[in-house]
Amino acid sequence: MKNILVVLLMMVSLMSLGQVADEEAIKQIFDKALLNGKSYTWLEYLSTEVGPRLSGSPGAAAGVEWSRHELDNIADSVWLQPVMVPHWIRGQKEIGRIVNSKKLGTMEVNVCALGNAVGTGPEGVMGNVVEVKSFDELKQLGEKNVRGKIVFFNRPMDPTKVKTFAAYGRAVDQRGYGPSEAAKYGAVGVIVRSMGLNVEAYPHTGSLIYAPNLAKLPAIAISTKHAELLSKTLKSEKDLQFYFETHCEMLPDVPSFNVIGELKGSEYADEIIVVSGHLDSWDLGQGAHDDGAGCVQAMEVLRLFKILGIRPKRTIRAVLYMNEENGLRGGLEYARQAELKKEKHLAALESDEGGFTPRGFSMSAEDAVRNKIINWKPLLEPYGLTDFSEEGGGADIEPLAPLGTPRIGFSPDSQRYFDYHHTSEDTFDKVNKRELELGAASMAALVFLMDKYGVK
Amino acid sequence: MKNILVVLLMMVSLMSLGQVADEEAIKQIFDKALLNGKSYTWLEYLSTEVGPRLSGSPGAAAGVEWSRHELDNIADSVWLQPVMVPHWIRGQKEIGRIVNSKKLGTMEVNVCALGNAVGTGPEGVMGNVVEVKSFDELKQLGEKNVRGKIVFFNRPMDPTKVKTFAAYGRAVDQRGYGPSEAAKYGAVGVIVRSMGLNVEAYPHTGSLIYAPNLAKLPAIAISTKHAELLSKTLKSEKDLQFYFETHCEMLPDVPSFNVIGELKGSEYADEIIVVSGHLDSWDLGQGAHDDGAGCVQAMEVLRLFKILGIRPKRTIRAVLYMNEENGLRGGLEYARQAELKKEKHLAALESDEGGFTPRGFSMSAEDAVRNKIINWKPLLEPYGLTDFSEEGGGADIEPLAPLGTPRIGFSPDSQRYFDYHHTSEDTFDKVNKRELELGAASMAALVFLMDKYGVK
Repeated sequence: MKNILVVLLMMVSLMSLGQVADEEAIKQIFDKALLNGKSYTWLEYLSTEVGPRLSGSPGAAAGVEWSRHELDNIADSVWLQPVMVPHWIRGQKEIGRIVNSKKLGTMEVNVCALGNAVGTGPEGVMGNVVEVKSFDELKQLGEKNVRGKIVFFNRPMDPTKVKTFAAYGRAVDQRGYGPSEAAKYGAVGVIVRSMGLNVEAYPHTGSLIYAPNLAKLPAIAISTKHAELLSKTLKSEKDLQFYFETHCEMLPDVPSFNVIGELKGSEYADEIIVVSGHLDSWDLGQGAHDDGAGCVQAMEVLRLFKILGIRPKRTIRAVLYMNEENGLRGGLEYARQAELKKEKHLAALESDEGGFTPRGFSMSAEDAVRNKIINWKPLLEPYGLTDFSEEGGGADIEPLAPLGTPRIGFSPDSQRYFDYHHTSEDTFDKVNKRELELGAASMAALVFLMDKYGVK
Repeated sequence: MKNILVVLLMMVSLMSLGQVADEEAIKQIFDKALLNGKSYTWLEYLSTEVGPRLSGSPGAAAGVEWSRHELDNIADSVWLQPVMVPHWIRGQKEIGRIVNSKKLGTMEVNVCALGNAVGTGPEGVMGNVVEVKSFDELKQLGEKNVRGKIVFFNRPMDPTKVKTFAAYGRAVDQRGYGPSEAAKYGAVGVIVRSMGLNVEAYPHTGSLIYAPNLAKLPAIAISTKHAELLSKTLKSEKDLQFYFETHCEMLPDVPSFNVIGELKGSEYADEIIVVSGHLDSWDLGQGAHDDGAGCVQAMEVLRLFKILGIRPKRTIRAVLYMNEENGLRGGLEYARQAELKKEKHLAALESDEGGFTPRGFSMSAEDAVRNKIINWKPLLEPYGLTDFSEEGGGADIEPLAPLGTPRIGFSPDSQRYFDYHHTSEDTFDKVNKRELELGAASMAALVFLMDKYGVK
């Protein structure tokens, strides 16, 4: 009995020693990120010197070279993983115009082409406007009310969703599938209300996905401010004419790369923990929050391990994916190669919700993994990481699901994200240094624990 | 036995009905604040039309009139509580200058007078600079090294404190008491490193408190950027001269007011729940985060109750205190009157940490109250209110402590606060609409629960 007690006491004291050691290690990670972090200066360079990084653009190529070079100073090995990517270009600035309104006369409105859309060319598209809030409503209107017209999808994001991604998820079908839905009924063009929660002057771009075997309609996003104006005007002028002109086009695929750097595991080198963001961005801003932030945070995780002298047991791999925004080719190719090479991915973590203050992690994982991570909450809560409730992960790491890899998303506070997302406003000055650094440290802390204890 | 079971089941179902009702009521509060909130338009007016509101200034008087008028549309009764306030004025813009440096030549640096400081007048102050990091270091240097010189307090805020108010709390003694500490050893003036976490170009003002029976030294804050430069230059040029000129002065006290509006309780009208912010601000910016945000949030709590038809059992009183920044006269007078009138204050809640995304509430209260509030956590967590761990409250409500009133502080995310605090950057455009609205709703939700269930 006494012996059992001694053993139990030893176990308890070893456990608490372990706890103290983990607390101390995590504090060192956060202190280093806040005192001597590199994520912010990296992001400044990536945003303002490299600039926007649309797949296939010179900016994307520059981003690949820059991040490879930076990782070379940190990682045990760095390589480029080739991947063919779509090469969509916006062309000259779009025109959107309310034509000959009784109230407004002819008036320019703020629009931009949706990513992957066909262009109208210089002749533009002109037509009456049919406003709908849903695909059901469109279906009920049917071909007789839609043929030859421009469909205007105007269902707002729901401001009462406290987590703004929930509002995005319930509105973004209009942008993704609206153009093909409208094509079913003979529309000639599509206007989509921008995916933003505020009434703003600037439009939000983002991808559409054309369904096969349907006409590819030209499609634009309109600023929320002008969406409101257009909707209001339509109420009294049913026969309002709208004109838009886009010069975008999809060119043949071009070669590009995922950028990968890793710290080799000392004990289980074949067990890989991915920490990631996506290097490509939209073309309108600088891709600062989306997703320059995620890239420099992933790089910073490796750097923090390195400069703190934390030798990982597993292999920690920073992956900067290419082409999340309009094709996901990087994420798909990464998973394909992982399967081909029979790599064992212990877990994959992505940061793709902006460089904001940390709130927690989302998870798509079996219960054993989820519970193990939730058990680390006491170590992470002092840093504001309290929310482990959401399903999630990240678009680029989702293709690892069939390999059984748990996907984990870094979840920063989401209130400001959709003020900037996919717009001209997504610039470096919108990123707060401490918030970005705390995010990088949060990711490093979770990777530290997963590396030390595994995930189940 | 069966009867007991039935009773138990009824109790459980009543409890869960209560829970559901509370969940629903709190959801309505948040929905209303996010869909039809008024805090943001109010704050725009208060920040940009009324503008800065230093105690005794025309702006402060305008703030009193404006908020009284707005509350008149909402509250059952509104009144102004007279209070005499200090009338400190900044006068013409300050000059700070490194003189005849070998490296820098003569160079202007960014400074501002500390609040409540005496001015140098047009002759200014010139002297060698003694840099110290602490009062202990100053004491060790002693009169022989300090007399006739300018003392430069340059201990930075600690960036590794995740909660930035902890860093502020450990640095602000330099600003508050530094000038009198320096006076003990015969200094002629004081420079204090601005209370900011970043390297910034602009200085942060804030109050000093002169000790009785010591010389009142003129004192300025220097921008963190120029604090770094001055410190670096001093390392190689010990005999560097510094000149500064301030035209501030303390005029005789003037009359002003706390602005108070209340919804009368339907059952326990004599039990008062205070919800508050402070109406005065510093003069350099617009007092948007500090503390226009807290004022409009307190007003919004009343408005949300009103438009949702929530008839409070207790009396809900919005108090917009005057003179938090450089005297606390409003808070002191409010507590004095409460004691004189033998008012029963059930609880007092203040928002004075900026209009940022909600994280929780701080509390200075006995355990019974604290535990009761923590038990409401499941109702509040869905809105990001997870942190109930801190001691706290607010400067203006602290004088209610001797009356036994629990003091509660609304705790928003603190990462960005000290980028703006007491500076020219504290302007309306730095406030995010949703974050401000979520804060107002958070306060309304807590007041709703305290009103419905009491606090112990």
